[in-house]
Amino acid sequence: MKRSVPEMIADKRNGLALSADDIASLIAGFTADSVPDYQMAAFAMAVYFRGMTRDETVALTLAMRDSGLVVNLDDVPGKKVDKHSTGGVGDKVSLALAPMVAACGVPVPMVSGRGLGHTGGTLDKLEAIPGFSVSLPIARYRELVREVGTCMIGQTAEIAPADKRFYALRDVTATVESVPLIVASILSKKLAEGIDGLVLDVKFGSGAFMREVDDARTLATALVEVARGAGKACVAWLTRMDRPLGRAVGNALETLEAFELLHGRGPADLAEVTYQLGATMLVLGGVARDEDDARAQLVEAVRSGRAAEVARKMIAAQGGDPRAVDDPSRFAKAAMTVALRATRAGFVSAIDTRKVGVAAVVLGAGRMRTDDVIDPAVGFVFERNVGDRVAVGDVLVTLHVQHQAQADEALARLAEAITVGDTAPAEVPLLLERIG
Amino acid sequence: MKRSVPEMIADKRNGLALSADDIASLIAGFTADSVPDYQMAAFAMAVYFRGMTRDETVALTLAMRDSGLVVNLDDVPGKKVDKHSTGGVGDKVSLALAPMVAACGVPVPMVSGRGLGHTGGTLDKLEAIPGFSVSLPIARYRELVREVGTCMIGQTAEIAPADKRFYALRDVTATVESVPLIVASILSKKLAEGIDGLVLDVKFGSGAFMREVDDARTLATALVEVARGAGKACVAWLTRMDRPLGRAVGNALETLEAFELLHGRGPADLAEVTYQLGATMLVLGGVARDEDDARAQLVEAVRSGRAAEVARKMIAAQGGDPRAVDDPSRFAKAAMTVALRATRAGFVSAIDTRKVGVAAVVLGAGRMRTDDVIDPAVGFVFERNVGDRVAVGDVLVTLHVQHQAQADEALARLAEAITVGDTAPAEVPLLLERIG
Repeated sequence: MKRSVPEMIADKRNGLALSADDIASLIAGFTADSVPDYQMAAFAMAVYFRGMTRDETVALTLAMRDSGLVVNLDDVPGKKVDKHSTGGVGDKVSLALAPMVAACGVPVPMVSGRGLGHTGGTLDKLEAIPGFSVSLPIARYRELVREVGTCMIGQTAEIAPADKRFYALRDVTATVESVPLIVASILSKKLAEGIDGLVLDVKFGSGAFMREVDDARTLATALVEVARGAGKACVAWLTRMDRPLGRAVGNALETLEAFELLHGRGPADLAEVTYQLGATMLVLGGVARDEDDARAQLVEAVRSGRAAEVARKMIAAQGGDPRAVDDPSRFAKAAMTVALRATRAGFVSAIDTRKVGVAAVVLGAGRMRTDDVIDPAVGFVFERNVGDRVAVGDVLVTLHVQHQAQADEALARLAEAITVGDTAPAEVPLLLERIG
Repeated sequence: MKRSVPEMIADKRNGLALSADDIASLIAGFTADSVPDYQMAAFAMAVYFRGMTRDETVALTLAMRDSGLVVNLDDVPGKKVDKHSTGGVGDKVSLALAPMVAACGVPVPMVSGRGLGHTGGTLDKLEAIPGFSVSLPIARYRELVREVGTCMIGQTAEIAPADKRFYALRDVTATVESVPLIVASILSKKLAEGIDGLVLDVKFGSGAFMREVDDARTLATALVEVARGAGKACVAWLTRMDRPLGRAVGNALETLEAFELLHGRGPADLAEVTYQLGATMLVLGGVARDEDDARAQLVEAVRSGRAAEVARKMIAAQGGDPRAVDDPSRFAKAAMTVALRATRAGFVSAIDTRKVGVAAVVLGAGRMRTDDVIDPAVGFVFERNVGDRVAVGDVLVTLHVQHQAQADEALARLAEAITVGDTAPAEVPLLLERIG
């Protein structure tokens, strides 16, 4: 007999585990509007306090995935592997990574999100490419994954609609911060893409959603366990997000910087994360013996120009100007640049990365509300990062802004975000540990 | 600045105490439909896990009270004192108590509820009196409290509407079982009656909502603290509800039994509870030096016929037939009586009182859903109660039923509810302890 929703809520409230059938009927009812928002809100709060077992989280993930379209990529040869990052400041990894991995023979179907709050989003960066469209029909998405090797689109209304509604409800009922609910939200969308494997970049630090490494480790472990419980190959990396990744923050500037990687250039930290995640993807994709082999393949894909060529093909197929991969002048440029200079000598000892992200949003590079409009041209280029030595008058950041008032506000916010001290902080690894 | 509802929910979720202003604005918003049900549901679940301080519960009680009409009885001389019971099986105390206390000079304004589930309700018992109306305009209610000394009506839509809505929401979100929410629900309605003092009968045992005495004590303590925090005199009694109170279960039968008390007769257990609660009310009402004095006054009010006279006046004023107080033939009678007889000798060692209540509901004496119709005539009279010696063939219960099929089902249910054993159980006090 199907159990009543109040019974299920009471069981969860009392610390019992729900069956996969219970969870499936709950989410099916929510999707069909027969389970009202108030019952889902009470359920979410009960989960906040009681958690969920791995099996429950798998069931929730699959139920939310199955609330909409699940893309079938079985006719695309090879194992399809995607990457997901929990979000940070300056994180433009996907834009270089997807073409590099695809160039090595692992198809990368990628459904991404937009920036919200202090973190940026891949879709916003892609839209800095003139003409680029992130809204393709699913049939075309499947075609591009098969023919080009990768396709990068936004979440459509067809994919995991229950997740979209549940997230909106959690956002206004103080139930966002629950590991099983976060896990199911992330994975339900990723599993709908048609993937065989997933590499996760779980970030921690001042610019990440999880400030503490322990929280990030808990989340990463749950993500890996649940993805595997759902039958997918999965590995997570814990990466530091207590400074901008790379030098650029802002959509056109970040896309440009990502394309630098496709030409074998670009900042070392960005390359380090991109090559590590890519190597793991190639191993999961079954085209590399081990990560050393995988790295060599990635280097060769870049050296040979094949990675850049995949990027050009994908951009052209998605309506964008493929010359953007090679020619920075194709991007919109801000009206002026101004410099934030060091007022004391020493070392950059800390960058409050969340404040950098918020400064970028205020500038128009991101959004606080989902209906805010983004200016692709504005942003920051960090000329110095944490650990770098500076003299008085050295340029710390070059700001790309449209007018002086913007410059003044951003300068003030950045000055507050950057600390110059007497000594360099101890060097710490960017990639802290592998999970799974 | 007024805080957002998600902020308040998050604070409660995190174990912080909310201010009285926060709680007032939450309930005002809920009443005005600007705070949606899903936020109240998440809030209720957070309260379930985190509880509420005394001050928070007082604020919630007052905010729910103030969502509707608060009756002003200042022009009624003396301290107005009501009694509230958390509900049980055979609990007809109010029907005798209110006239007795009013006859001693303490006005008793009483807004009561209907039965639901296994427990009966005062309104249903009153309506067994031919013609009696529990729906009076508030102006008439005030008049009767002033002129007759007591008036017994049902909750109107004007009284604590936020409580009514919040309770309905809690009922479908597994958030009923929260002490501060129960306390605020009970007291918000009682404080709207215009009382100065309140005596609580908090029941525990198989026929009560709280089966365990510790839970009942926790609830009673919270009720007394919060009522006092709201400026009312308050005392609670913990009373045993592991057997029917008195002999009768069923609306006309119970009302008849309550009126027996007004004539100085009736079962000893019912008299014990009624006189104790009445004595406490007289002391809170300021008309008795102590409980001994109060008991003597109650005895005299009954002996002199003044208590019965108050009952007749109240019934007449509320449209009922006042002869019902003295003449059992005024009540509706069931078509037939059948007997449940002992099939073994020994002692009645236990009565599963919840099962008795459910058997009464199945018979038509109560309701499982709020729209079930009640038959006032049906019910049970227990010829033996827990501890009584029985021989084979002795009548345990006389059933008042309308037809044989009813009789068969009720006989089976009662037989299962009553245990006859070899020895009498140890005697236990009916009134366990006074709180406050």
